[in-house]
Amino acid sequence: MPSSEFVKEHFVARVVVDVMLKPEILDPQGKAVHGALPRLGFDGVRDVRQGKRFELELDGDVTEDRLAQVRRVAETLLSNPVIEDYAVRVEQP
Amino acid sequence: MPSSEFVKEHFVARVVVDVMLKPEILDPQGKAVHGALPRLGFDGVRDVRQGKRFELELDGDVTEDRLAQVRRVAETLLSNPVIEDYAVRVEQP
Repeated sequence: MPSSEFVKEHFVARVVVDVMLKPEILDPQGKAVHGALPRLGFDGVRDVRQGKRFELELDGDVTEDRLAQVRRVAETLLSNPVIEDYAVRVEQP
Repeated sequence: MPSSEFVKEHFVARVVVDVMLKPEILDPQGKAVHGALPRLGFDGVRDVRQGKRFELELDGDVTEDRLAQVRRVAETLLSNPVIEDYAVRVEQP
């Protein structure tokens, strides 16, 4: 979307939190998907991992402070830090 | 990551498929997360949606052809098109 001279929506911001099992943790859901791929005629897939994606719609601007809060939420509520990694990013609407 | 003069890993490519419930479909998991946020002292969140994220590691290059295959997989195996939307994108390692 090159021409973004449109209305800049500063009222709602979307923050995405991706939660994936750590690489060393077995992922049976991903394995099940991986095993089903050849049946669909889809070869050449080395691995599949399945995780969770959370979309948070925040009122107002995304400040460093609020991102720090989202990271705290990701760590305590959205993921289990013992077995999962998370990534937080702001998504342009 | 501005300086990407490193080794270009053309052997494994990662394709990410995000699957989210359509906006008009109720999302009880997202609602549960949303309801828990004030307990963590995190206000100002208008909505939370929870979905799935799949990471597919493909051998070799990602061609248009293979992306079309991934879209077919996303439509038939990874999502339920009646209630879910999916998005496919190539992720730089």
